[in-house]
Amino acid sequence: MNKLLYGVAYYDEYMPYDRLEKDIQMMKEAGINVVRIAESTWSTHEPQNGVFDFTSVDRVLDAMEQAGIQVIVGTPTYAIPTWMVKQHPDVLAFTKQGQSRYGARQNMDITHPVYLFYAERIIRKLIAHVCDHPAVIGFQVDNETKHYNTEGPNVQTLFVKYMRENYKSLDVINKQFGLDYWSNRINSWEDFPSVIGTINGSLGAEFAKFQRKLVTDFLAWQVSIVKEYKRNDQFVTQNFDFEWRGYSFGIQPDVDHFAASQAFDVTSVDIYHPSQDQLTGIEISFGGDVARSTKGSNYLVMETEAQAFANWVPYPGQLRLQAFSHLASGANMVAYWHWHSIHNSFETYWKGLLSHDLEPNPVYEEAKTIGRDFRRLSTQLVDLKKTNRVALLASNESLTALEWFKLPGGAKNYNDVVRLMYDELYKMNVGCDIVHPGSDNLQDYSLLIVPALYAAPDSLLERLNEFVKDGGHIVYTFKSGFTDENVKVRTVRQPGIISEACGIHYSMFVEPKNVGLSGDPLQVGEADNKIETWMELITPTTADVLAYYDHPHWGKYAAITENQYGKGKAVYIGCLPSAAIVKRVLERAVKEAGLWSEDQELSFPLIMKSGVNREGRAIRYYFNYSDQASEFRYPYSNGRELLTEAAIAKDQTVSIDRWGVLIIAES
Amino acid sequence: MNKLLYGVAYYDEYMPYDRLEKDIQMMKEAGINVVRIAESTWSTHEPQNGVFDFTSVDRVLDAMEQAGIQVIVGTPTYAIPTWMVKQHPDVLAFTKQGQSRYGARQNMDITHPVYLFYAERIIRKLIAHVCDHPAVIGFQVDNETKHYNTEGPNVQTLFVKYMRENYKSLDVINKQFGLDYWSNRINSWEDFPSVIGTINGSLGAEFAKFQRKLVTDFLAWQVSIVKEYKRNDQFVTQNFDFEWRGYSFGIQPDVDHFAASQAFDVTSVDIYHPSQDQLTGIEISFGGDVARSTKGSNYLVMETEAQAFANWVPYPGQLRLQAFSHLASGANMVAYWHWHSIHNSFETYWKGLLSHDLEPNPVYEEAKTIGRDFRRLSTQLVDLKKTNRVALLASNESLTALEWFKLPGGAKNYNDVVRLMYDELYKMNVGCDIVHPGSDNLQDYSLLIVPALYAAPDSLLERLNEFVKDGGHIVYTFKSGFTDENVKVRTVRQPGIISEACGIHYSMFVEPKNVGLSGDPLQVGEADNKIETWMELITPTTADVLAYYDHPHWGKYAAITENQYGKGKAVYIGCLPSAAIVKRVLERAVKEAGLWSEDQELSFPLIMKSGVNREGRAIRYYFNYSDQASEFRYPYSNGRELLTEAAIAKDQTVSIDRWGVLIIAES
Amino acid sequence: MNKLLYGVAYYDEYMPYDRLEKDIQMMKEAGINVVRIAESTWSTHEPQNGVFDFTSVDRVLDAMEQAGIQVIVGTPTYAIPTWMVKQHPDVLAFTKQGQSRYGARQNMDITHPVYLFYAERIIRKLIAHVCDHPAVIGFQVDNETKHYNTEGPNVQTLFVKYMRENYKSLDVINKQFGLDYWSNRINSWEDFPSVIGTINGSLGAEFAKFQRKLVTDFLAWQVSIVKEYKRNDQFVTQNFDFEWRGYSFGIQPDVDHFAASQAFDVTSVDIYHPSQDQLTGIEISFGGDVARSTKGSNYLVMETEAQAFANWVPYPGQLRLQAFSHLASGANMVAYWHWHSIHNSFETYWKGLLSHDLEPNPVYEEAKTIGRDFRRLSTQLVDLKKTNRVALLASNESLTALEWFKLPGGAKNYNDVVRLMYDELYKMNVGCDIVHPGSDNLQDYSLLIVPALYAAPDSLLERLNEFVKDGGHIVYTFKSGFTDENVKVRTVRQPGIISEACGIHYSMFVEPKNVGLSGDPLQVGEADNKIETWMELITPTTADVLAYYDHPHWGKYAAITENQYGKGKAVYIGCLPSAAIVKRVLERAVKEAGLWSEDQELSFPLIMKSGVNREGRAIRYYFNYSDQASEFRYPYSNGRELLTEAAIAKDQTVSIDRWGVLIIAES
Repeated sequence: MNKLLYGVAYYDEYMPYDRLEKDIQMMKEAGINVVRIAESTWSTHEPQNGVFDFTSVDRVLDAMEQAGIQVIVGTPTYAIPTWMVKQHPDVLAFTKQGQSRYGARQNMDITHPVYLFYAERIIRKLIAHVCDHPAVIGFQVDNETKHYNTEGPNVQTLFVKYMRENYKSLDVINKQFGLDYWSNRINSWEDFPSVIGTINGSLGAEFAKFQRKLVTDFLAWQVSIVKEYKRNDQFVTQNFDFEWRGYSFGIQPDVDHFAASQAFDVTSVDIYHPSQDQLTGIEISFGGDVARSTKGSNYLVMETEAQAFANWVPYPGQLRLQAFSHLASGANMVAYWHWHSIHNSFETYWKGLLSHDLEPNPVYEEAKTIGRDFRRLSTQLVDLKKTNRVALLASNESLTALEWFKLPGGAKNYNDVVRLMYDELYKMNVGCDIVHPGSDNLQDYSLLIVPALYAAPDSLLERLNEFVKDGGHIVYTFKSGFTDENVKVRTVRQPGIISEACGIHYSMFVEPKNVGLSGDPLQVGEADNKIETWMELITPTTADVLAYYDHPHWGKYAAITENQYGKGKAVYIGCLPSAAIVKRVLERAVKEAGLWSEDQELSFPLIMKSGVNREGRAIRYYFNYSDQASEFRYPYSNGRELLTEAAIAKDQTVSIDRWGVLIIAES
Repeated sequence: MNKLLYGVAYYDEYMPYDRLEKDIQMMKEAGINVVRIAESTWSTHEPQNGVFDFTSVDRVLDAMEQAGIQVIVGTPTYAIPTWMVKQHPDVLAFTKQGQSRYGARQNMDITHPVYLFYAERIIRKLIAHVCDHPAVIGFQVDNETKHYNTEGPNVQTLFVKYMRENYKSLDVINKQFGLDYWSNRINSWEDFPSVIGTINGSLGAEFAKFQRKLVTDFLAWQVSIVKEYKRNDQFVTQNFDFEWRGYSFGIQPDVDHFAASQAFDVTSVDIYHPSQDQLTGIEISFGGDVARSTKGSNYLVMETEAQAFANWVPYPGQLRLQAFSHLASGANMVAYWHWHSIHNSFETYWKGLLSHDLEPNPVYEEAKTIGRDFRRLSTQLVDLKKTNRVALLASNESLTALEWFKLPGGAKNYNDVVRLMYDELYKMNVGCDIVHPGSDNLQDYSLLIVPALYAAPDSLLERLNEFVKDGGHIVYTFKSGFTDENVKVRTVRQPGIISEACGIHYSMFVEPKNVGLSGDPLQVGEADNKIETWMELITPTTADVLAYYDHPHWGKYAAITENQYGKGKAVYIGCLPSAAIVKRVLERAVKEAGLWSEDQELSFPLIMKSGVNREGRAIRYYFNYSDQASEFRYPYSNGRELLTEAAIAKDQTVSIDRWGVLIIAES
Repeated sequence: MNKLLYGVAYYDEYMPYDRLEKDIQMMKEAGINVVRIAESTWSTHEPQNGVFDFTSVDRVLDAMEQAGIQVIVGTPTYAIPTWMVKQHPDVLAFTKQGQSRYGARQNMDITHPVYLFYAERIIRKLIAHVCDHPAVIGFQVDNETKHYNTEGPNVQTLFVKYMRENYKSLDVINKQFGLDYWSNRINSWEDFPSVIGTINGSLGAEFAKFQRKLVTDFLAWQVSIVKEYKRNDQFVTQNFDFEWRGYSFGIQPDVDHFAASQAFDVTSVDIYHPSQDQLTGIEISFGGDVARSTKGSNYLVMETEAQAFANWVPYPGQLRLQAFSHLASGANMVAYWHWHSIHNSFETYWKGLLSHDLEPNPVYEEAKTIGRDFRRLSTQLVDLKKTNRVALLASNESLTALEWFKLPGGAKNYNDVVRLMYDELYKMNVGCDIVHPGSDNLQDYSLLIVPALYAAPDSLLERLNEFVKDGGHIVYTFKSGFTDENVKVRTVRQPGIISEACGIHYSMFVEPKNVGLSGDPLQVGEADNKIETWMELITPTTADVLAYYDHPHWGKYAAITENQYGKGKAVYIGCLPSAAIVKRVLERAVKEAGLWSEDQELSFPLIMKSGVNREGRAIRYYFNYSDQASEFRYPYSNGRELLTEAAIAKDQTVSIDRWGVLIIAES
């Protein structure tokens, strides 16, 4: 990117009356310099089968061009028109719940040739129509693409072929997937049953992997079409989203972001999060770290909240805090979904920068200050380079496997473990990348955090052992290494291959009830000295025991261990501890890895993020995620606070407003 | 009516052995003077297709005639016989959940010609058979009729035709309903998708309105058939029910009672309610007010509870209290569902006046006293005329729209807001009518209560502005005026058209967490000074602020305002307050409207209801909805307590038993 | 049995690598002397339609034979192979939820001729193949058989024929089942509607009975086939299970264990239960009492837990405690499901005796001590004969009927009432048999406990009256006697026929809110003086009142009564009381029945169970179900503790470890 982008999703088609001129004027006043259009409105652009009408696209493009606002054009393929469903009802996906119904977006079978035929045609028509327009800087293919649980007979056929290609013989499959169990054995390819009803977790997890591949393939196919048309100065991206818990919580189960992002020039994401008293910045940081890590580069926040849902209108200052938090994680764009609040249909209360009255309001007024600062500071803040020595290993395969084999109680899943670890790193201001089972750059890091790596091939675990042997530090949690890539439990003492680096073994595990760590060894106090959900009964071989369980029968077993292995150390957490315990363990690991710095003297709600800008200058963002003003000591070389232009001296005590942000560039 | 009716639903067909003579004897002893028959037993009256057998009807009619008990005959169309479903399985309604199954009542497609053919035939046969019988005083067509979510392809076809008739062009529909959103646009009539899967709230709400019209049309069709046969001295009615929460809670979502009642001579309702310590009389009052308001006249309570469900057997005295409470709201009939407790099937624990042993029991014994008093006081109590100066505006359209756009948390719906307001009026002994968006008699009232009028056409809101300008008082709650009749959010500052009368505007709203009103301005005490669920951030223009929010960021916004507009005043409550706050606001409004009277010096659990009898004499009912005896000052002219014949002097202190009732007629 | 069996389910087919020799060696070391095989692996034994492969069976049989381990061979019919479903998809059961899907076991229509054809063929092939093998001591047909809610059109046809056969005429059915209600009347056999949608509780309960008969018939059919092949020294059994609440809770709703067990030589059951701090032994005792009572003989525990689920790994000592608890109830076999922990599929965390590492572990080590003691004490402990004077009457019909007519709140069902009574008996060390409505040996008992006998024919209730008249004691709970065998409420004063023995009547009942017993007559203290869910308003005729309700309006009604009738006494509990109240009532009843003994001086967690061994010697087991060591006085004749060989003198104080077990044989 050559500048910071500040944008909105803009739906001229949804406007209750002709507002284009007024909207553009108000966008200009707010410093909006990019809009995303067209990705939801297939039925407007192709009102009947083969009849195309890009009037609304043209008029927006021309008006934006005139106003100097750039445009990202989306392919409108994630919401199909009525005529298609009426003519070909079978484009609606078949799922466990039966066939999807018309109405919602994202209800189609993304493998269905009828859908693909029409999708290809509208993509070609639209992109050919707009690709030469000077306002267009890039394309988004589809939107928040997932597989929508398509699993009808045609998808099943694809899956059987995928299985034959990958495993060659049914004997291998029967063996690796344990299909003898409950008479699930398949002795002839044509007997292969629909996976919809399977109770075999190995097969189910493989099908989930196959479904993620459908998404990767579908997106790459769209990109390949767009690339036939686009100019060299135009990019292609997608808008990834995350595990949704009413907001962007964790790793996306249905898409392998690392695989899927390969086809794109740049990664975009949407990030939604609680605000008001619940605003912490964690989702902004986590989503940003995932996005940045997919391609090891800067990314775009294609959608985030303005007034948000009914209950998350930001407090004064929070919209600014959020915007700069995105930049601090490496975003080059912050765009709101959406410009105006929609007057009908479904997302009426997912409010835009403008309310339904389409007039200025306090949130819009705050956006103006962001737009102004983005423009003024663009060259200093764009393309922030971040170099982290800590990475968290995220695994879609482990996530899926732990959906099949849920933790007791069912309340906690893989992403809870990921976030338990991630959140504590964030709160202690430790910058973090996200790596994945296929990452080949583990050696770039000093410390790996490995939450619940439940399903992993031998090769990965061996690489992790090597990483430690070569001087790296790892913090594992419970369940890591338990099964192989086919979710088959290892037949050796647990945690299997990583036992070597961890210096422990166990063969039994239980669900803790009122269990803590014996003697509060991590000094977290009684209230926090608690574990829940899972406890492995660990026997150390070469490891030091950091904590034993406090339990009348299992007290002889270790809960948390640390092992020197080669030149590095591996910590193993055999239970789901309180956040306070995790914090202590991670503090220790960060120190052991030699990564403890001045930044760790601050902690949440004072958040500090840093990087190097295009001039090679260190840029440090300070955020106050609190309703109370605060202050801190600035420990680095003299610099300048960019928002206020104030000089900041080394070791100066700096004040920061509630929900405040400071950006200090070293001189 | 020429007398008070005291009745039961009677199912000779369900009796375990021949009991008719004994039952009639016991009815006579209890003062029962009317029974309802035949409305549930089609399969008995038409055991095979085209074979009719009215033996049980005839024998009951003759026996009742002999005993001097009158009869209301129901058309048996709400529960279809087995032979019909076996021969024509497609009469079972298709809903979102698939096709309904045989077994329950109310499972058919009320638009299906096969069903309509058979229904018409049994109606004609039955009514022709009984209409000349001297015992028959009236007819009930069908029972608790609703649309049963019928929404199969044939209903969809009707809906498309309805849409074309109402809106003429798809362009209008696309625009008004916002169908461009998520590519839902319909560009050709034959593309019109099934509404079953729609996510468009405007379209969904229109379909709900269409479904209510199906009910209205179906009932009018039955009435038109019955009218071909009935004598002039016979009435036709229906038995409406209410939103069901295990009891009769609020406005019925699936039927427009005001529209549907037009076809009938008199409105009947069923009213079920908690009893024992939970007995308040509110449901009796609310259901009665709706019923009375449908035709501005007296009504029948076609069903209410005797021993009720297992957990609601009335305490001694409560059955009497309930019966006279119905009369006090304007009922001319109180009838129990049902005479005896049913020995098999489904409603075995929905007990009748008799238990399963069919012998006298304490509840039956209490009924005897009611029957005696009804008979004795009939001429003084029948046809009570009530004139209220306060009305509550209820809107099926707003109810539906708030189902599509639920309040945060999902725990509260439209009827909760209605009841929050209604209950406080009830408790302060303010008599109340129910009006609806089509009511043309608003000028009859001094004070309108308008809860959450979320979906309303301009014309209605303009009429409400006029009402205030002309000297009326209105209390609005939050969300009123927000969308038009198509559930399209208004594109002006909220609350849109009523801003003029309310003197306020807002464009933002949030979900309150631990928010109260600043400084407890309504003096309700700390425990009650609370709002929940919703808060609009209101800026007054001409309004006085009655309360601000107590909030660190939103404290500058108003919560409750009052505005002089023309000769009247409009109060606007921008949040969901505690009942205590609502009480204070309504007290103030009642006083401002000049309606505060002696009656308001009493309050729940002492309830007072009044009217004028056929002789023009004021009748005042006093009820003690409490387990403690009480007393009160009687502030009116000297009179006579009708139950005891005691003289009551003005300003006399009168005692009232726990769960007691007094009826004082002015001399 | 000629010896105690100590076994495991063994799945050579599921082993991740060839382990047979190693497994057998480890089994031998643990004292395992029997394995169950083959019951889950049809697809391995018949990999294609008509192609049979018993290799894995043969190799296991031969190896076991060689090792002196006996084998029970299961017919593999409860989990169908992929080829069958692919070729004949309609073998999957049709249920209310639609057709079952392939994947899980127990998904087929057990009445479908296609399934029956293939099932018969594999049974004949397998049994013919193995029946002469010397290792095979018996057969299990199918596994945990139920009807899997099969209720498609073919099952419906069977049901209609069943109804015609049983009731002859529709007139009878219409009358007895109350089908006039809601127009459900059936006037022609071909109109008989599918029962899937019925709301008629009588018809629904009859269908449930019919479904249980399907299970009985299916099992008898399998037994008849096996008997064509089996040797005289081989037995046939089934593995029954119980109402499942994550563990074996109560009476199995879907199988009539008493009827189904008739076809078998010996009854087997599986019993799973909480362990660790939740281990009480109640499920072991309850399941054992049911199993023993089915044939009035010793039984086999075909499955119970070793390491159990993730959260129920036993504390040290508990596995022993559990094993001997089974013996103390009359088991001749204790077998674990399963030997090893499965590495794939569904039950990965339902762990075996071995963990996934297939190595010795603490639980396995404890099993070794059990195997050793079983072998050493086999002749003294096998075939324990138990003679109880107390029986609990369990009724599948009442269970089903109370599913149709649920207790208020829906939280408690029939089995909750059964267990409320049973648990208190258990805790006071009163040995108990289970009888059923068809039992003809009631006279063997002095005290009958009759929980919620809601549906029962006149004849049974008359027999119970006779039982009391002849000197027996009964404790009834609320709802007993309320309906007949067709779930038709009796038309006389309740509790109907048993009123005579109970000396009470009632016609009203309510749901208690904060109700206790007046004056705490059973001296349980304020916290326990509570009733919930149900209260009948009882008037005594000849009965003494043990407790009145403490209630402002219902205080004149009795809650618990006792009546002398003939030579016996009937206690009636008209509500659902606290466990403490039940305990007092049962203590009183045990004493009144003359059954109070030294054993009742001990109570939970000290549990005592006894019987007589093959030598006629009294064997007394003492269990300490507690994490605290304890001691007790041994009140019987001098004896010997069999595990330690220690002599025990009369009146000696004996110590018992936490989770300890002692077995004292009288000298």
